[in-house]
Amino acid sequence: MSGRLLLVPNTLDFGIAGEGSALQDVLPHGVLQAAAGLTHWVAENAKTARAFLKRVDALVPLAVPLQQIQIVELPRPVKGSAKSAAPDLAPLLAPIEHGHDLGLISEAGLPAVADPGAALVAAAHARGIVVVPLVGPSSLLLALAASGLNGQSFAFVGYLPVDAGARAARIRELEALSRRAEQTQLMIETPYRNGALFAALLEQLQPATRLSVSCGLTLPQGFTRSDTVAGWRRSPLAMPSDVPAVFSLLA
Amino acid sequence: MSGRLLLVPNTLDFGIAGEGSALQDVLPHGVLQAAAGLTHWVAENAKTARAFLKRVDALVPLAVPLQQIQIVELPRPVKGSAKSAAPDLAPLLAPIEHGHDLGLISEAGLPAVADPGAALVAAAHARGIVVVPLVGPSSLLLALAASGLNGQSFAFVGYLPVDAGARAARIRELEALSRRAEQTQLMIETPYRNGALFAALLEQLQPATRLSVSCGLTLPQGFTRSDTVAGWRRSPLAMPSDVPAVFSLLA
Repeated sequence: MSGRLLLVPNTLDFGIAGEGSALQDVLPHGVLQAAAGLTHWVAENAKTARAFLKRVDALVPLAVPLQQIQIVELPRPVKGSAKSAAPDLAPLLAPIEHGHDLGLISEAGLPAVADPGAALVAAAHARGIVVVPLVGPSSLLLALAASGLNGQSFAFVGYLPVDAGARAARIRELEALSRRAEQTQLMIETPYRNGALFAALLEQLQPATRLSVSCGLTLPQGFTRSDTVAGWRRSPLAMPSDVPAVFSLLA
Repeated sequence: MSGRLLLVPNTLDFGIAGEGSALQDVLPHGVLQAAAGLTHWVAENAKTARAFLKRVDALVPLAVPLQQIQIVELPRPVKGSAKSAAPDLAPLLAPIEHGHDLGLISEAGLPAVADPGAALVAAAHARGIVVVPLVGPSSLLLALAASGLNGQSFAFVGYLPVDAGARAARIRELEALSRRAEQTQLMIETPYRNGALFAALLEQLQPATRLSVSCGLTLPQGFTRSDTVAGWRRSPLAMPSDVPAVFSLLA
């Protein structure tokens, strides 16, 4: 009797004590129950996974004490060609072969979306393991829904180049692509570079292009604002540099 | 004192009695509480919105009886140019001006993602109304997470053409785009055409292209399977024709 790989969503607050949204505002009770029942985990970060389990325990008691729960960290992705240098993930799936359900959890949001973890899911499929994605917050989809931009066709393109010239070129490329495909383009940035990306977007995009900014979604201070680039230029935003943001554009 | 526009996720079971996942498995308690407190709604379909509220009421009593809750249907999108023929959505936002929070709800999943509703969100932003997206199930993101394909860059392209020739051309175009941009391409289909799309994908895609199929996610019979096209050809799947499916490919 084989176990399953459960994809367990984390909150979007990175465990910030006090500032965090309540767990029951962002995770279904059924997901908390599933998480509380797991004794084996693979985590992007073991420390934040333990912090998550402590928060779960306060609502739904863990099946076994936290110290007895096995948490193995996902290997860091190797820079460069991911395909040729992929680490062997089979040992991480061993608990499943011994009949245990295994949880996969990220530092924030849905595992394997905009973060590592997809390789472990792929390895599970290659072994015929049942993969069960559980419902939780995704900053990308929340931002898209709240943007008012096209939700019938959209793309997430990750991070833009840090170099100013390359970033400007990429922004213009994404705007052209958005116009041609009528496709909303979503991107993220490291919080301390939020302001630089926002300024570059306002500089490079056409005045009529629509731009939406979501900051700290699901947090008490979270907000989404959408306007044309012309509108943004008239009343710009002081971008917070300490919360994650999602930027969406539609030309 | 203005109200807010709350984007309230629906389940993915289309209210199918008996077959549905429990509400508390797919919606956070905080979201159920928020939904139970709303007296004004805009819905893709008023009947399914009422069915949803009945299910909520069984867990968190509604603030006012269902008969007293105002549910206005979103105008059907006009075929052709959405921009020129867009209906005036301002009347739908009137409750917000009178100080009420307004809920927006779709037939399934997150409002304004892969369904109508984005225009109402855009109209809210144009009036400076606060838009709050609530956490719930998105078949697209669950499918992406469970696919094991690239979650760092992905696009949702909606429905493919029904005409076989146009569909084949679109599949080849998406495969080329996926290869060029290393981007997972997600698409959906009307359930009774699931089999036809799956067959077309197996026929058109290259053997090494990875293809993931998620059917009925969050439902008891839900599953995700991922393989190369060559692998799928060796052991194809009898595609269910009565549950929604998400198809994801990565070349």
